[in-house]
Amino acid sequence: MGRALLTDLYELNMASSYLRRGMTAPATFSLFVRNLPEDWGFLVACGLDRCLDFLEGFRFSDEDLAYLANEQGYHEATLEAFANLRFTGSVRAVPEGRIVFADEPLLEVTAPLPEAQLVESYLLNQVTYQTAVASKAARCRLAAPDASMVDFSFRRVHGGEAGVGVARATAIVGFTATSNVEAARTLGLRATGTMAHSYVEAFPSEIEAFRAFAEDFPDRVVLLVDTYDTAHGVRNAIEVAGELRRRGQRLTGIRLDSGDLARLAIEARRALDEAGLEEVQILASGGLDEHEIARLVSRGAPIDAYGVGTKVGVAEDAPALDSVYKLVEYASEPVCKLSRRKATLPGPKQVWRTPREDVIGLDSEEGPEEGEPLLVEVMKAGRRLDDGSIEAAAARFAADLDALPHEVRSLRPAPYSVERTPALIQLASEVAERMRARELA
Amino acid sequence: MGRALLTDLYELNMASSYLRRGMTAPATFSLFVRNLPEDWGFLVACGLDRCLDFLEGFRFSDEDLAYLANEQGYHEATLEAFANLRFTGSVRAVPEGRIVFADEPLLEVTAPLPEAQLVESYLLNQVTYQTAVASKAARCRLAAPDASMVDFSFRRVHGGEAGVGVARATAIVGFTATSNVEAARTLGLRATGTMAHSYVEAFPSEIEAFRAFAEDFPDRVVLLVDTYDTAHGVRNAIEVAGELRRRGQRLTGIRLDSGDLARLAIEARRALDEAGLEEVQILASGGLDEHEIARLVSRGAPIDAYGVGTKVGVAEDAPALDSVYKLVEYASEPVCKLSRRKATLPGPKQVWRTPREDVIGLDSEEGPEEGEPLLVEVMKAGRRLDDGSIEAAAARFAADLDALPHEVRSLRPAPYSVERTPALIQLASEVAERMRARELA
Repeated sequence: MGRALLTDLYELNMASSYLRRGMTAPATFSLFVRNLPEDWGFLVACGLDRCLDFLEGFRFSDEDLAYLANEQGYHEATLEAFANLRFTGSVRAVPEGRIVFADEPLLEVTAPLPEAQLVESYLLNQVTYQTAVASKAARCRLAAPDASMVDFSFRRVHGGEAGVGVARATAIVGFTATSNVEAARTLGLRATGTMAHSYVEAFPSEIEAFRAFAEDFPDRVVLLVDTYDTAHGVRNAIEVAGELRRRGQRLTGIRLDSGDLARLAIEARRALDEAGLEEVQILASGGLDEHEIARLVSRGAPIDAYGVGTKVGVAEDAPALDSVYKLVEYASEPVCKLSRRKATLPGPKQVWRTPREDVIGLDSEEGPEEGEPLLVEVMKAGRRLDDGSIEAAAARFAADLDALPHEVRSLRPAPYSVERTPALIQLASEVAERMRARELA
Repeated sequence: MGRALLTDLYELNMASSYLRRGMTAPATFSLFVRNLPEDWGFLVACGLDRCLDFLEGFRFSDEDLAYLANEQGYHEATLEAFANLRFTGSVRAVPEGRIVFADEPLLEVTAPLPEAQLVESYLLNQVTYQTAVASKAARCRLAAPDASMVDFSFRRVHGGEAGVGVARATAIVGFTATSNVEAARTLGLRATGTMAHSYVEAFPSEIEAFRAFAEDFPDRVVLLVDTYDTAHGVRNAIEVAGELRRRGQRLTGIRLDSGDLARLAIEARRALDEAGLEEVQILASGGLDEHEIARLVSRGAPIDAYGVGTKVGVAEDAPALDSVYKLVEYASEPVCKLSRRKATLPGPKQVWRTPREDVIGLDSEEGPEEGEPLLVEVMKAGRRLDDGSIEAAAARFAADLDALPHEVRSLRPAPYSVERTPALIQLASEVAERMRARELA
């Protein structure tokens, strides 16, 4: 199936115009985020895997072409060109899992202008939401680096596709499992889950529900204790733990999903410990985000694992990043946009990470000594070079987080320094000057 | 293909346990939103169409079953039961496009307990994000009821599936077109689009880009005028409008995408009018939401059409509603949850709309005189009765909006009155009492 219609109509208009006029020289577009959300110290690059898949499989199906002919009135010649169009370009990108900052290109596409233009909407779509979610989830990891975290978000994210994207993004920043079964299956992640309040309510009493669950899933008994009254639920769980123990089995954990989670966790821990159930874990869930997790940690809540859902799955405070995909070079000419407050920097770029700061410069430059280039070639002549491994991305995130200055690794971070090379500043000024002179003479 | 794994693992655990124990009596679950987002006066019901499709096609594929056997260790008997499981229940729902309020069931599912439980995650997922987006888009309509509005959101919503969902949700509240081609194709909507800044930059000058576009798309010439300098871009557009006129064609519109849109629109309108181009429309875009549109309207900006994107497509201030799917009756016994601040109301329900207020009661009640029941049967014995028509949903929204009290139809609304019948209040108190007595004795 072609997925070429996963785009905005204006991309088709422009591509059609370019094809008609023979404007097929190589163009470079740069995808970056203009501003970080308030209080976010960094972003975690995510979404590239789906982009490369899309580019590799890019084509118009017969059905697509029929629609464009009948409903959109494209010319015969345009439709013929679309029918034969594949993505033949190259992509340089920051690999998934790496930490990046505002203005740093997440990816740069170089391809004949119509190809590079047509794929704009989809690349933005995937990179924007997956990077937002990975970054938000990374903030939860900052709040409780030693706790285990699980993706519980599927029920309130924006569709089934988003559910899989969120599971992948959270896995990259170190979440250990997801509740989303389809995501676990397709991505090879660990699926996890216990019971809902409805399960407890469907039985004649809470303890009967607990006993039934323990009998049916003896190797993963996590009991939800807050359907009626948490303290009472914990006592029921302890009773079932005793029954399990007598059968040579054990209670894995209890889950708290409402109320004052810190107080309830402290009380539950005490009750469990008094019953000799030190090994039983406490899992907390219910509207958690990085701020709530930080509050729980600061109150000394003995929570072993967090079920993190809605607020991370939709990146609640930044559900869309300020991302753009801008033409920076066409037919070997660097270009830029002069619009007020939305001006862009010309030319294909590279970002170098040094021990002190990042430096954005032109791809043609040498770059600073000790500088590690962040953008690497991930697609060449339309074939992907990157295998999209979640494990590799998770390792990159862990290493980048470790190396991040302490004051940036915070929920209220100090800004990280991102400089521009003299050559980039010089080129930007020359191109802007040339365009101003030409257009506004 | 089965889509039964689009769920949380705990749903499978619970269903497996229910099947094993013969707990297959009818259950009713109620899906509702507990609280409206701040300053939102109402919600627009949306997402039902996808839910009914999902329920009708619900099944576990061989691939799903193999995964559950090999990776999740479900029993043979459970897998056999899953293999034969279809959704055989009924659904009563508020039809899409209708205006609803907090606590009012958007839909109620009645089916054998395992079936009703398994579909929870997907139903919540679809209804939550589509209702959020439809409601946010409806607020844009409140801000400028007479302007035309277009969905420009695809590039920053949460995936391709969300893009189609957003196009549909915005169409239901009266948006006239979408930029998303795949959504337009699959939903039969009007696709619309002009050009990006990159188009202007790819030509040697702005006016050459404008001329090329006018030549290639003479029946839909909308020129983006802010790539370099808006006043200058408007002059270029006027020049091209003259050339078009001499060829017996015409300029359809100009688009403003940055800067002080109200001032620029006033200046552009004046320049166009002075050139005798009164019929040329002004389209504004760039980070618009209901508040920005209201500000533009209050400043008298002569904007004919708004391209509304990111902030509506992700429902920026409420990317996830506080939605839940709660068991309210099992085996003819009304049930509820007692958790602090998350207590639920027992029993299958109906909502009646009267000229003064809405009334939530038990489905078995007569309901108030003059009360129109909002929930209607949309699925029976697993077959859908509702055709999912966008036109019908749009007509329902328009009628409901017209009938809404003026003070609720506002960006800073007065609360709408939603009462509960004495019978519901009585039942809630009895059931809570009975459960407390049983559990906490």
